[in-house]
Parts: sequence; C-alpha cells; structure tokens
Amino acid sequence: MVEKDSHLIEKTLDTRTIHEGKIITFTEQTVELPNGKQAKREVVLHPGAVTVLAITDDEKILLVRQFRKPCDRILVETPAGKLEPGEDPLESAKRELEEETGYRAAHWKKLNAFYTSPGFANELIHGYVATGLTKMEQKLDEDEFLDVIEADAAEVQRLIDNEEIYDAKTVLLAYWWLAERARAGRD
Amino acid sequence: MVEKDSHLIEKTLDTRTIHEGKIITFTEQTVELPNGKQAKREVVLHPGAVTVLAITDDEKILLVRQFRKPCDRILVETPAGKLEPGEDPLESAKRELEEETGYRAAHWKKLNAFYTSPGFANELIHGYVATGLTKMEQKLDEDEFLDVIEADAAEVQRLIDNEEIYDAKTVLLAYWWLAERARAGRD
Repeated sequence: MVEKDSHLIEKTLDTRTIHEGKIITFTEQTVELPNGKQAKREVVLHPGAVTVLAITDDEKILLVRQFRKPCDRILVETPAGKLEPGEDPLESAKRELEEETGYRAAHWKKLNAFYTSPGFANELIHGYVATGLTKMEQKLDEDEFLDVIEADAAEVQRLIDNEEIYDAKTVLLAYWWLAERARAGRD
Repeated sequence: MVEKDSHLIEKTLDTRTIHEGKIITFTEQTVELPNGKQAKREVVLHPGAVTVLAITDDEKILLVRQFRKPCDRILVETPAGKLEPGEDPLESAKRELEEETGYRAAHWKKLNAFYTSPGFANELIHGYVATGLTKMEQKLDEDEFLDVIEADAAEVQRLIDNEEIYDAKTVLLAYWWLAERARAGRD
C-alpha cells in the first residue's frame, strides 16, 4: 500500500471468530476507518476455488447443471470446486474438470482470478481455459449430483438470456469466450 | 422444478440461524439429497445488490477504487451497493451511481443478474448499463471512502491484466463491454 492510498485504507484492530463452519468461517472484524473512526466488518472466510472453461474441438464448452441450495434452484455452471488446503489451483482445476465432467485436457491456460463477493467474503476463484479434451470417466463425490451438457456459442447466449446460466463466474467466462470469438470474427 | 430434475434436487429439512449479522446472516441447512441421504449446507443470506456499467459519451466507463476489508486490498470496481429492504433494483442502481460517482444517467438498461457465490451464499447482483451521463454531486455515506476514475477500453484491459480490476462483477461487465465493442468493430 502506498502513502497516496492512506485516505482509503482500513486498519484491522481486532478479528473475532463468530462461527467456524465446515467450509466457511464467519468473522467480525473491527477496523479503523481513514477518518479515525471505528467500524465493524462482517467477513466470511472461504478457502478459494477454481473454475474451468473447457472448450471441445468442435467449439462447444462443457457445463454442469446442478442444484444450488443457497439459491434453491438448478444453475448451469462451468465446472468448479473448492481448493483443498495447500492445493495448487491448476492441479485443483484439472481434478475438478475430470471428476465433474469425465474430461481430461491436454492444454491449460490461466485466464484470470477474481474475488466473487469482495464486500463480505474473501473467496477468490482462479479461472482456467482448457482445450484438447479427451473423454475419461466421471468421478463424482458421493454427495455430488450433476448433469454435464455441451453448448456452442449460440446455446451459451440462449442459456444466459434464459437465466439458466445465472452465476458470476460462468457469465464472466462466457462473456470472455464470446468476446474472443467476436474479435476473431467467429460470430 | 420438473420431474426430470428429481435426480438433482435437494429438499430442505431444517434451517438453523447460527448468527444474524448486521448485513449477512449465517445459517446451517439440513437437506435430503437425491439419494435419500442427509447433508448439512452452510448458507450465507445476503440482501442482494446492484452494479452499474456507466459509459460516458466519450466511451469511458466509471470505476471506483476502494479498500475491501475481506480482501485486505484496494480493488477497482464498477459502482455498486447493497439493496435496501424492499428497494427496486433499478432505483437502487440510480442511487448508488449518483452517491458514489456524482453522475446521473439519462438512459438505463437492465443487462442481467447473477449469483456471486452460489456454493455458499444467496447474494444476487443486478447489473445495469447506464448512458447519457451528467455530473451532479458525489454523496458518499459517512463511512464510505473511494476514488472515482474513468477508463477507456484499453485502460480497462490494462486494469484487468494488472489485477486491479479483480472482482467477478467488474470483470464480467468489462468482458461484456469489450465483447460488444468487438462485435461493433470498435477495438
């Protein structure tokens, strides 16, 4: 942090764990604001996650349909999963793609990373693009239930318009892909 | 929900409030899985939010630089804010744009909405595109500290590459804008 940003920065005075869950932890942090006053911040700690835009040789992407309890509905999403402690994000992305879809990819590219909810959580998702796909065997966790679908660019746009693709990481990756295709004159 | 999705759907058996915060609430939900077994789901309840891609007449977008406690760093983001109880998302978007940036927009378009963290939270962000901007007066909340910047398409790409734009909603809206510009042959 540089001096010029001192009018923005909050100093942490205290961190209190309210509830340590199995996956996420709820904390309350006391901060000193740039104007010297104090405030409370509710912060959810999350281990981080990965997601994969996996593109087939015939220019479709792999998506999973799954029920999401927090939203109480089925969403269509790019394959994704939480990071295990100490796990390398790329290894995690490879593992999640194969477990959820049954596909292994020959070529991997780190696209970006992004906080999902910087106002109240520290979840950081690492996004990858995977190509050169080979079908292996799907290996879902015991408590994981999902359908795998393939969608071309027109179908992806339809899924967004229909609010079936309706989560930030998937819309983000889809827009990136559509922008790349537009730049290459492919739509 | 249709019959064909019964192999995906989780039924809620019980919801327990672990901690009701000022902004978010931590709950633990007991569900029945499609295979009949039970599982626990940690779910953060959030009031929802809005964000605005505000485009100036000379084709720049308005961004705010602010410190984000959960991430312990400054992020560059599209103007955004939480929904007040019962508030119409469009009214909220107009309010947040003017409060944070001092700009009022003549033209508003709903672009989309998206869950930010469907694995553990129900936060839904409504995204708008605003044009026809007029400068009014910035009206920050007492505990809100931020800088407003304007960025053209090349600068937006640079901010993404430098990981200054590093949150899902902003990357998502930026990619949408870049895709639109690419389709119109403007990059």
